[in-house]
Amino acid sequence: MAFSNLLEVVSNVDKFPYQRDISSTETIHNYTPLCHESRVIGNILPDVMAQLRIYNSAQSLPPFVIENNVTFAPWVDSVEKRTEVIKTMMDLWRKEKTFTALAGWRNELYPVYGNSAREDNLAFVIERAASALFGISTFGVHLNAYVTEKDGSIKMWVARRALTKPTWPGLLDNCVAGGIAYTYSTKETIVKECDEEASIPREISEKASSVGCVTYYTYTSAGLQPETQYVFDLELPSGVLPKPQDGEVDCFYLWSLDKVKKSILDNEWKPNCALVAIDFMMRHGIITADNEPDYIDISYRLHRNLGFPTPTKCIK
Amino acid sequence: MAFSNLLEVVSNVDKFPYQRDISSTETIHNYTPLCHESRVIGNILPDVMAQLRIYNSAQSLPPFVIENNVTFAPWVDSVEKRTEVIKTMMDLWRKEKTFTALAGWRNELYPVYGNSAREDNLAFVIERAASALFGISTFGVHLNAYVTEKDGSIKMWVARRALTKPTWPGLLDNCVAGGIAYTYSTKETIVKECDEEASIPREISEKASSVGCVTYYTYTSAGLQPETQYVFDLELPSGVLPKPQDGEVDCFYLWSLDKVKKSILDNEWKPNCALVAIDFMMRHGIITADNEPDYIDISYRLHRNLGFPTPTKCIK
Repeated sequence: MAFSNLLEVVSNVDKFPYQRDISSTETIHNYTPLCHESRVIGNILPDVMAQLRIYNSAQSLPPFVIENNVTFAPWVDSVEKRTEVIKTMMDLWRKEKTFTALAGWRNELYPVYGNSAREDNLAFVIERAASALFGISTFGVHLNAYVTEKDGSIKMWVARRALTKPTWPGLLDNCVAGGIAYTYSTKETIVKECDEEASIPREISEKASSVGCVTYYTYTSAGLQPETQYVFDLELPSGVLPKPQDGEVDCFYLWSLDKVKKSILDNEWKPNCALVAIDFMMRHGIITADNEPDYIDISYRLHRNLGFPTPTKCIK
Repeated sequence: MAFSNLLEVVSNVDKFPYQRDISSTETIHNYTPLCHESRVIGNILPDVMAQLRIYNSAQSLPPFVIENNVTFAPWVDSVEKRTEVIKTMMDLWRKEKTFTALAGWRNELYPVYGNSAREDNLAFVIERAASALFGISTFGVHLNAYVTEKDGSIKMWVARRALTKPTWPGLLDNCVAGGIAYTYSTKETIVKECDEEASIPREISEKASSVGCVTYYTYTSAGLQPETQYVFDLELPSGVLPKPQDGEVDCFYLWSLDKVKKSILDNEWKPNCALVAIDFMMRHGIITADNEPDYIDISYRLHRNLGFPTPTKCIK
């Protein structure tokens, strides 16, 4: 179904409630905070909570304390132990096929952060596919690749996701994107993904410029996804064409920004990637306060304060 | 006093409390919301509230209803009447020198917005100098003028405010900035200010590109200032130099971004303008997640959701 305006596109992604309604019977309002060092570091929906209670009470040494919030038991007192207790529970749930989200296991570890007042606030690491079960805040990189025409106008490289992708097959996507695995910097990640997803050689991808981050809080059937996408722009010389390499992308199009905007309103994009393209058009004078009535609200929603601890050390 | 990091620079501007502490005796927590159409459209600190009560009770037909909030009395039922009752009170306060903020009267009208669900949500207009007394959300434009060197590096044009300016004399500033008066578009405002403040001719200033907005909630001795700054970037050809024209600027410097960043940390900038320069450096690959540990928090604070109604019509 097409959207009637860009704010609808954004609201369709940044849709986790801004205000919790305790009296609501909707599942999305009935989450239990996951806490660590007095900070909320995730949220757990009722279906996961039910399994977590079963698991926890079946252990001789329960790893969690469950009250109004979920916290780690006092004996789970290091990065390694927190990582281990989560992993052990995930291995069981994966084996028993408790949650379909875990079928997408990737062997990619994501960092989870605690108290931002500490110099190194890594709390534990968690398998990427499991992060949404706990509403863990995750971090990725997205690249807008574009070409400047002789008349100064901009065209954007848009990816068509492969029909074989388990998530959002066949939809439009940013040229390159990926999650940031533990210990990778944003720049290393973008250079690696440029090669893997679009065959863009390192000597070109290293020119990608960091241009901000887009933050939003979404959810899908896989769970809760508060996400931070570090955004890069890369101007490609006219002779350099992105080419699919790892099977994730079906093909690339070089489109005018009018066409990009129309395809977004026509709901042809993977939802969160549309936000990165909207941010690009706001930074490049296409979507402006003089032509977009919801300009300020869109800016707020693309930079939502997620409220979770953020990394206190640069990732490198 | 110098700052120890960029997040401190931002927090020094975006300093209105995120959470109101009702039990606090601090003035900044003791505000009274100004409401219209069930929306909070401003906040009033105790000193202004005291004068407003005196004024209101002295009128045969009081224009305000004062309870936990301040609202317009039912008879004040149009844009014109709301504008008029505020203006009449301001004229008196100005004559009686009730607030020093009103000494800076500019004869510039700022729009105030109400219920965003309405197609045209202008609630009233208010003299620029009076807006901070009511914590009215205001809108301005800021321009980053820059030069790209042959090696691809960027230098930024930085303005030194005239020593005769009533506010922040002698501090550093963005190349061009100004408030958006009622009925002006953002682009018209930037073109006008480019001419008035920096002698940049229209054929060049029209190439300024809209690149987003920076939103923060600050306060000074003049009152509460929740502000939205629409940001423009303008790449100047190397032969085009900004020149002071209207006496607001003492001189312009062309500085490396290293020097810009150092001068910001050294507290040499008009505080809110430093935020626009930081946003520039985040959009141009200078401040990145790989070199700035507070990257995400800075992004949040530069795009604070002010919570006031935003204009629902493009301003043109």
